[in-house]
Amino acid sequence: MARNGTLIQQVMAHVRAGMASRSYLPGTRLPSVRQQAGLLGMSVSTVVEAYERLAAEGLVVARPGAGFYVNGPVAPLALLELGPKLDRVVDPLWVSRQSLESAQTTLRPGCGWLPPDWMFEEGIRRALRAQARGPLAELTEYATPLGSPGLRQLLARRMAATGIEVSPEQVMLTESGTQAIDLVCRFLLKPGDKVLVDDPCYFNFHALLKAHQVQAVGVPYTQQGPDVQLFDKALQEHQPRLYITNAGIHNPTGAALSPLVAHRLLKLVESSDLVIVEDDIFADFENQHAPRLAAFDGLARVIQIGSFSKTISASVRCGYLAARPEWIEGLVDLKLATTFGAGRLAQDIILKTLTDSGYRKHMDLVRQRLAENMEKVAQRLRKLRVEPALMPQSGMFLWCRLPQGADAAAVAKACLQEGVVLAPGNSFSQSQSAGDYVRFNVSQCADERVFAVLARALNQATASR
Amino acid sequence: MARNGTLIQQVMAHVRAGMASRSYLPGTRLPSVRQQAGLLGMSVSTVVEAYERLAAEGLVVARPGAGFYVNGPVAPLALLELGPKLDRVVDPLWVSRQSLESAQTTLRPGCGWLPPDWMFEEGIRRALRAQARGPLAELTEYATPLGSPGLRQLLARRMAATGIEVSPEQVMLTESGTQAIDLVCRFLLKPGDKVLVDDPCYFNFHALLKAHQVQAVGVPYTQQGPDVQLFDKALQEHQPRLYITNAGIHNPTGAALSPLVAHRLLKLVESSDLVIVEDDIFADFENQHAPRLAAFDGLARVIQIGSFSKTISASVRCGYLAARPEWIEGLVDLKLATTFGAGRLAQDIILKTLTDSGYRKHMDLVRQRLAENMEKVAQRLRKLRVEPALMPQSGMFLWCRLPQGADAAAVAKACLQEGVVLAPGNSFSQSQSAGDYVRFNVSQCADERVFAVLARALNQATASR
Repeated sequence: MARNGTLIQQVMAHVRAGMASRSYLPGTRLPSVRQQAGLLGMSVSTVVEAYERLAAEGLVVARPGAGFYVNGPVAPLALLELGPKLDRVVDPLWVSRQSLESAQTTLRPGCGWLPPDWMFEEGIRRALRAQARGPLAELTEYATPLGSPGLRQLLARRMAATGIEVSPEQVMLTESGTQAIDLVCRFLLKPGDKVLVDDPCYFNFHALLKAHQVQAVGVPYTQQGPDVQLFDKALQEHQPRLYITNAGIHNPTGAALSPLVAHRLLKLVESSDLVIVEDDIFADFENQHAPRLAAFDGLARVIQIGSFSKTISASVRCGYLAARPEWIEGLVDLKLATTFGAGRLAQDIILKTLTDSGYRKHMDLVRQRLAENMEKVAQRLRKLRVEPALMPQSGMFLWCRLPQGADAAAVAKACLQEGVVLAPGNSFSQSQSAGDYVRFNVSQCADERVFAVLARALNQATASR
Repeated sequence: MARNGTLIQQVMAHVRAGMASRSYLPGTRLPSVRQQAGLLGMSVSTVVEAYERLAAEGLVVARPGAGFYVNGPVAPLALLELGPKLDRVVDPLWVSRQSLESAQTTLRPGCGWLPPDWMFEEGIRRALRAQARGPLAELTEYATPLGSPGLRQLLARRMAATGIEVSPEQVMLTESGTQAIDLVCRFLLKPGDKVLVDDPCYFNFHALLKAHQVQAVGVPYTQQGPDVQLFDKALQEHQPRLYITNAGIHNPTGAALSPLVAHRLLKLVESSDLVIVEDDIFADFENQHAPRLAAFDGLARVIQIGSFSKTISASVRCGYLAARPEWIEGLVDLKLATTFGAGRLAQDIILKTLTDSGYRKHMDLVRQRLAENMEKVAQRLRKLRVEPALMPQSGMFLWCRLPQGADAAAVAKACLQEGVVLAPGNSFSQSQSAGDYVRFNVSQCADERVFAVLARALNQATASR
């Protein structure tokens, strides 16, 4: 088989070379299987398999009864795909695009996820192997409209552990946490509506709200949660329909909601028809448990959403939302209409990984490692006069102020030239008042180059001022 | 390990029984690991592993330094989840909901996909196993904004084989074909816009357009494609922004676009700003190649979309769109804002399965099997005076007229009572003029019960008239 495999590769290489040298022109027929076997001194079955593989790759086309034909030319991948776009304006999607587009050699202290070697490798591989042996229907059939009952039941139990009472039927699985918020926006908002966000907040909330043509209203975020007085003022002034925020660990500041602020905030909104979306994506990173608005409110006006892209995998897409029962039917219809359901395979892999008895231990280690890195990175940054606004209790983010006069967008652009993606403050700020802040992901700062490149960019920025 | 595994299961069963009998009450602490080991005569490590697994399942909660606590109660899955909702109104989502919600014992001649045992089982399992051994980054990291370069290159080659010249950079991967159309709608439409659809057409187009609050305008579909005269009339009268249609095999009728109609249609729209979305999801089912609007038009105003949910898996979510280069950037931004990218794992599995040299042979067999079933099912239906409107050249759908006087919605509701999900004609019809039509999926009619139940429902329907 190995030997035969090599022969097949030889035939494939021969055909590819013929196409490259244009001795096999696009649209023309390849030598018949028998002819080719004779020409190359190979068996007919070897040539058949080589042609089939070339057909599977789309390089040739099989025409039943007529033979194999060279496929038309295809433009090569252009160079611009290989690197980030240096000239893109720093808009809400700037950090996402730079982080997602950059090559493996790029350093990404600006991205919002852990490096691959921090992830629960054995658990994911084990889940995939089990999946490969599992029932066929799991591998080929659609999920049910709500999604995997087993995973929804587990999520209900996890929520119960944070004080949120919820039945599995109030839980709907989605492709991602972002899709869950998107569906809520589609369900509740119309163009021109107003939506409260934290200032600063996760930059993709801005991009998402822009896509919905609604107006985002920023409320300054303090170390204990949103500024309650300014929240009240925004509530009176704008009659917002929705407030989107993080549960537990706040992105980008690393702050956590206090019980007092949570209680006051829910009292303030009592007489309004505001709905709150609480994004609990960082739950498993918490060292100390912060209160959940969904727990205080009993999912009356709070919708909780979450996903596993930070803790298990961003490659296996799976998110969820939990909401009051009457809203679920409409949300399911909307999900079916716009994506025809979420991925069953992804749901099954996430369930297997979450219920792997190694998962909790793995996350214990991750939290410990993050805490150590948090200290180390803060020290390194302080030496560059980059000052953390607070020292978070948990999570991966450190929200820092640059030395006076340094503009974060300019520093980020300079760093990008040297292959380091930063997350400049104004990507997160509705009021654009965080121009001298940068969010650092402490799990992505292991390489010395991060600090060397940053130091150079800062020197340049403060010198040219 | 096997023996140890059994002991762990015993401890877990013991704790579960204690919770069920309420000797371990919610919120209380379980006996310490050491105590429990003594009580049950097991080793401490066995009890630790059992407690960890119960924690992973969410039944107990580990509090570091304090022990393991029984988690709060969780409502059980309600019964209504186990079966389809019999009283739901027959709306555009009726068929999807009934097909997706129904138990494994339900027969589904109304659904739009192949049974699991028709799928490329070895190929999918092989791809999953390879994936489980693959690079870690593929298993944990986000996809690039456009999606897997390898899969986009393969798709560009596949499109080249149908006459569509496209660079891999004009191809964006999505979570599903439906999501691809949804993104196009978000990109091009505003509430109140008008959109042409075939009458009849895939029912989810109606649901999707409703979600976008745009007005669908139906154009009767003939055996050669849309009725050109009525298409022209609708174009003049409504100035639609978009036309959404199938490429190749039409859903639900099984008809195919003729080159003549394709050419006329593109001439008609020359002076308009209409954009056409051509859904090529059934491409690999074609026995004879129908023309593609995208090929005639060179992707100037046509956007081609597709997915692999019918041919490879509906559990592994992956779709794509191909469009003119200037539109791609905006569509990528919209995708990131609303779902933060599509699943890398799914893309890699689809690429591996499509390039498996067995895939083409598998699809040859599927097409042959479909052709045989098409004949057989048509014969069976004719005996019940259910008449195919045409005999399709390819695909899984047979669009049939019921005996005079039978109302398809009523027949579908009667069949559902006996565990058979049908697809009644008006789910597909904008003008609601297909009340005596039903779409049959010939791959889902192997069970005799389909015809027995249908016969009873028809007798009832025609008798009660």
